[in-house]
Amino acid sequence: MQEHDQLHKMRHSLAHLFAWAAREKFPDVKLAIGPVIDNGFYYDFDFGTTSITESDFRVIEDRMRQMIKADYPVERTEIAIDEALARETESGATYKAELIADLKTAGETKVSYYQMGEFLDLCKGPHVARTGEIKGVAFKLWKLAGAYWRGNEKNKMLTRVYALAFPTKEELDNYLLMLAEAEKRDHRKLGKELDLFVFSETIGKGLPLLTEKGAAIRRELERFIVDEEIKRGYKHVITPDIARLDLYKKSGHYPYYKDSMYAPIVIDEEEFMLRPMACPHHFELYLSHKHSYRDLPMRIAELAKLYRYEQSGELTGLIRARAFCLADSHIICANSDQAKSEVAGVLDLIDFIVQTFGLKQGEDYSYRLSLGDRSDEKKYFKDDEAWNVAEENLRQVLVERGAKFVEAQAEAAFYGPKIDIQMKNVSGKEDTAFTVQYDFVMPKRFNLTYIDNAGQEQQGIVVHRSSIGAMERIMAFLIEYYAGVFPVWLAPVQVKLLSVGEKHHQFCLDLLKQFRELGIRVEVDLGDETVGNKTRKAVAEKIPYLLVIGDQEMAAAKLAVRDRGERVTREIGREEFMQEVLDKIKNRSL
Amino acid sequence: MQEHDQLHKMRHSLAHLFAWAAREKFPDVKLAIGPVIDNGFYYDFDFGTTSITESDFRVIEDRMRQMIKADYPVERTEIAIDEALARETESGATYKAELIADLKTAGETKVSYYQMGEFLDLCKGPHVARTGEIKGVAFKLWKLAGAYWRGNEKNKMLTRVYALAFPTKEELDNYLLMLAEAEKRDHRKLGKELDLFVFSETIGKGLPLLTEKGAAIRRELERFIVDEEIKRGYKHVITPDIARLDLYKKSGHYPYYKDSMYAPIVIDEEEFMLRPMACPHHFELYLSHKHSYRDLPMRIAELAKLYRYEQSGELTGLIRARAFCLADSHIICANSDQAKSEVAGVLDLIDFIVQTFGLKQGEDYSYRLSLGDRSDEKKYFKDDEAWNVAEENLRQVLVERGAKFVEAQAEAAFYGPKIDIQMKNVSGKEDTAFTVQYDFVMPKRFNLTYIDNAGQEQQGIVVHRSSIGAMERIMAFLIEYYAGVFPVWLAPVQVKLLSVGEKHHQFCLDLLKQFRELGIRVEVDLGDETVGNKTRKAVAEKIPYLLVIGDQEMAAAKLAVRDRGERVTREIGREEFMQEVLDKIKNRSL
Repeated sequence: MQEHDQLHKMRHSLAHLFAWAAREKFPDVKLAIGPVIDNGFYYDFDFGTTSITESDFRVIEDRMRQMIKADYPVERTEIAIDEALARETESGATYKAELIADLKTAGETKVSYYQMGEFLDLCKGPHVARTGEIKGVAFKLWKLAGAYWRGNEKNKMLTRVYALAFPTKEELDNYLLMLAEAEKRDHRKLGKELDLFVFSETIGKGLPLLTEKGAAIRRELERFIVDEEIKRGYKHVITPDIARLDLYKKSGHYPYYKDSMYAPIVIDEEEFMLRPMACPHHFELYLSHKHSYRDLPMRIAELAKLYRYEQSGELTGLIRARAFCLADSHIICANSDQAKSEVAGVLDLIDFIVQTFGLKQGEDYSYRLSLGDRSDEKKYFKDDEAWNVAEENLRQVLVERGAKFVEAQAEAAFYGPKIDIQMKNVSGKEDTAFTVQYDFVMPKRFNLTYIDNAGQEQQGIVVHRSSIGAMERIMAFLIEYYAGVFPVWLAPVQVKLLSVGEKHHQFCLDLLKQFRELGIRVEVDLGDETVGNKTRKAVAEKIPYLLVIGDQEMAAAKLAVRDRGERVTREIGREEFMQEVLDKIKNRSL
Repeated sequence: MQEHDQLHKMRHSLAHLFAWAAREKFPDVKLAIGPVIDNGFYYDFDFGTTSITESDFRVIEDRMRQMIKADYPVERTEIAIDEALARETESGATYKAELIADLKTAGETKVSYYQMGEFLDLCKGPHVARTGEIKGVAFKLWKLAGAYWRGNEKNKMLTRVYALAFPTKEELDNYLLMLAEAEKRDHRKLGKELDLFVFSETIGKGLPLLTEKGAAIRRELERFIVDEEIKRGYKHVITPDIARLDLYKKSGHYPYYKDSMYAPIVIDEEEFMLRPMACPHHFELYLSHKHSYRDLPMRIAELAKLYRYEQSGELTGLIRARAFCLADSHIICANSDQAKSEVAGVLDLIDFIVQTFGLKQGEDYSYRLSLGDRSDEKKYFKDDEAWNVAEENLRQVLVERGAKFVEAQAEAAFYGPKIDIQMKNVSGKEDTAFTVQYDFVMPKRFNLTYIDNAGQEQQGIVVHRSSIGAMERIMAFLIEYYAGVFPVWLAPVQVKLLSVGEKHHQFCLDLLKQFRELGIRVEVDLGDETVGNKTRKAVAEKIPYLLVIGDQEMAAAKLAVRDRGERVTREIGREEFMQEVLDKIKNRSL
C-alpha cells in the first residue's frame, strides 16, 4: 500500500482523530507516534500514572465518529524547525520534541503540522482533505500492548493501542473472523494445549524444550527430510555447532553477522563461537579432500543447529528462537549451468515436500526473486558480471517452471541473489520460509576448487539452500496450518486406548505393546474416570484413532475404532487396522 | 597390579637400568621420572639439544642386558631431605631437585635412593634385590613421545621413551601382535582410510566433522537406539544445548563441573553455558507439569549434545572430543522399588543393544558396581541411609541377573552409586562405556515430586542412564571392533556399482536410483579405470556388495554380486537381491 492511497490517508487521519479523542479523555497524556500499518494503525502514548483500558474503547470510538461527522477540514502548515522545537518543549511534549531534535540533527530546517478542528499534531502527512471523507470506513480500537519508545529496551515502556480500519464493514468483519481463527490456531496456544513444547525461565528465554509429543513431530519431519534428500543424492553430514572465530573471519561472515552472534567462548586461549550458519563448516569438509569434476555437483547437507541473537522482545514461540535447526545444504557446482540445474532441483524438492504437507503453489506459497542493490557496496559484494549471470540464471529457472514470481530489489544475501519461497501463515502474513541462494563469493574466499576434465584447477559456485527451513519454524507453521489436527504420520499420538474399567487394563497394555512394536505412537488412558470423560479429553487432543476397550471389545475379535472427527465407531479386525495405520504413516496420507 | 608384585619390581628396576644406560650414551641428559605402567614402564628425559632416536634403542637394550647379567646388587639408602636437595641441585638434576622440594613442602623429612652398580636414582621403590633377577624378563624399548613435565602444558616438553616388559618372550610377542592389530584397527586410522570423519584446524581441535559416510553410521545408530527406547516406553524429548548458568547452580552441578565447563556466553546480561549434562534440562521439563503416581516411572530420554572441557593433549579422535552426543535418559521413579526395577530394565536394554552389535557379556563387557566413599563429604553427598538403600538395591539387581561384577570404592557420582558397563577395546584396555546411576540428591534439589494414590505429595528418585553412551565413543569403539568391516545395516556404503565402460553408465545410474529409492546406501564408480582397479578400491573400502556392470550383466536378467570377503561372484535376480539387502538391514544381521 502506498502512502498516497486513499485507504492509507484515511487510516492516517483516523490515527490523529484517535489521539485527539484520547487526549480529551486523558488530558495529561503525552503523545508519541501513530503510524499506519497493514490492518489499520497504532498510536503510542505515555499515560503517566493513569492509563487507558479496553473499557474506554467504546466511548473513544463514538467520539471519533462525531469528529468524522463534524467534517473538519484537515490543514497542513509548515514552520521553522526551531520554532517547532520550542513549541513542543514548552508544552512538555517531550516525545515530539525528541523527534524534532533528531530531524534537526539530520539537517531538516522545517517541519509540517496537521490541524483537525482544535487538534494539532506534528506529521509529515499525507491526510484526507476533510474528516468527513473517512465516513464509510469501518474501524475498531482493537487491543493494548506495551512498546518501548523507539523500540529500544532501555527507553520507557509506552502504551500502544492498535486499531483496525478497513474500507467496508464486511472487510472488517472478515478480518476479525480471520483473527479469531488465527488466535485459535496460534502455535503457542496449541503448543500448550497439545503439550508440544514448553519454555523454562531457568533455562532461558527463546530456548524451547520439546516434550515427547513435540519431539515426535520434529523426529518425523527430520527423518522425512533426511531420507528424501538422500534419495535425491544429498550427502548428509554432521559438523560441530561451535567453531573458532577465525572460521567466520575467513568466510567473511563475521562483519555481517557479528551483531547476531553470541559472545565468544574461550577455550585454551582461542575464541570459539556458537555457529550462526553452517556454510563454512561444509566448506571445510569439502576442502578435506581434493575433488574432480566427477564429484560435482556435491550436495553437502545437514540438519544444522544454529544460534543467532534475537532481542528478547522479538522472541515468538518456535517462530523466532535463539537456537534453531536448519535443514541446510551447500551444493558445490562446477559452473553456472550446473548451478542453474541444481537450483531447479531444489525447487522440485521443495515442491515435493510442501505438497506432501498439502500446500498448494500460488495459494499457500509463492516465489520471490531477491536481487542485490549493486550500488550498495557495503552490503553487497562488488562483482557486477557475476551478479548479472547469477540473477539471470535464477530468473530463467523460475520462467522455465512457468511459476509466477515477484522480483524484490535489495533483498539478496551479500554473496549473491536468491529465490525465496514465501509462505502465508494463518494470519495471512507472508514470510520467507525457505531460500535458495546463489553464491560466487565463498568459492573465492575458501578456494573451493576442483580439477576439470582437462586436468585444470577450476573454481566452483555454491548454491546455499534450505529445503524445509528451520525445523522450529516449520513446526510452528504446520501446527497453525493443521490447527493441531495433524495427519496420521505427524500426529504425536496416533492411537489412544481408553480402558472402561480396571479389568481391561491388562488387555490395553498388551495391545499398547503390540502397537509400539510396530512403531505406532500409542497412549493408554487407564484413569478412573468414565469413558465419556476419557473420550472428551482424547478428542481435545485431536488424536486420529480412539479405541475404547471394555468387556465387549475384549470378547470380540474386532476392534471398535472411533476416527477423528467422527461420532460413531467402526468395527475392524486388529491386523487390518494396524495395517491401515501403518499405510497412512508410510504414505504420509493427508 | 600391586607394586610389591615381582613383575612390578622387575619393570621398575628395568626403568632404572634404562636410565643408567641412556645416561651412559647421553652424558648431559637430565632425568625426570620413570614409573611402571600396565605394559612395562616409561622414562621422561630432558636431552637438551641432542636427542635419543629409535635407532639408539638396540644398543641401549644390549647394554641393559649386560647390566642384568652383571647381577648388581640393588641397594636402598635413606638420607635427610635437605641433603638430597643439596645433592641434586648441585649436580644440576633440576627435575629431581624439584620433586624433592615438593616432598619437603608436603612435610617429608627423608627420601630414599636406589643404587645399582654406579647408578644412583631418587626412588621410593620397591625394586628387585639384584639385577640378575630380571634375567628372564622379555623387554623392548618401544616408542618415543613428547610429554610435558608434570603433565602441564606450561612446562617444558620432555622426551618420553615407552618400554614394554613381560615375564616371558611369548607374552611380549603376543602383546606386540595385539598392538599391531590394534594399530590397524585404530579408529583414527580407519576413520581416515574409510573417510568417516575429519578434523579441521580452522574449526578447532576436538571437534570432529562426520563425512557422509561417518554420518550414515551415526544416523543408523541414532535411529536404532531412539526407536528401541521408544518401544520400551521412553519419552524422547529435545531440549536446548545451552542454558542459563543459574540452572547448573540450582542443580548443584556447577561446583563439581565448573572446571570442565566452557566459559559463559553472555546474552542480554545473563550468563549462559554450553551444557555439560542434560539432567537439569529434563528436570525442568518434568516440572512443567504436575504429576501423579500414574505417570511414573517417567523415562525422559534424549540424544543430548554435551560439551566438556578436555585438555588438548587428551583429545583422542572420536573417543575424547570436546563436544559429544550422549544417548541420555533420566527416569523419574516413585520409590526405591521402582528405581530397582528400572535399573534392571536398563541393563536389559543395554544387553539387547550390545548383543545386537555382536558383543558377549563377560567376554566383551562386564559390570562394575561403583560405590561412594562416605567419608569424603566434599565429593559425595552426605546421606548414609540413602547411600545404603541405593547401593544395596544396585547390588541386588546384579545378583538377581546372575551377572558377575566387581565392586569399586569411591567411583560413584556425587549424588549416588552406579553400575558401570565396562567394555574392553581392541588394545585390551577396559573403559566405562555406559553407566546407570542412582540419584537421591537431584529430586531434593529440583523438588521432583508427584501425588501418590492417597493424594499426598511425594519425592521421587532419579535413575540417570545411558544406553549406548556417547555416539562418538560408540562409533569409535565399533569401528575398531569391526575393524571397519561393518555389518550391512551399519555399512556407510552397502552396495557399490562398478561400470565396465561408458556405455554402461546409464544402466548403472538407473540401478543406483532403484537402490536409493529403497533406502539402500549405494555408490557408483563411473571412473575411467579398469574394473580390476575399481574392484581393488571397493574391496579396500570394505563394502558388503560389489556389482560389476558390463555387457553381460546388462544383457542378463540377473545381477552378478561379489560378496565382501569372497573372490567369486554369484548370480541373483534383481528383486531377490534387493530383498536380501533390505532383510539384512532390517534384521541388523551380523
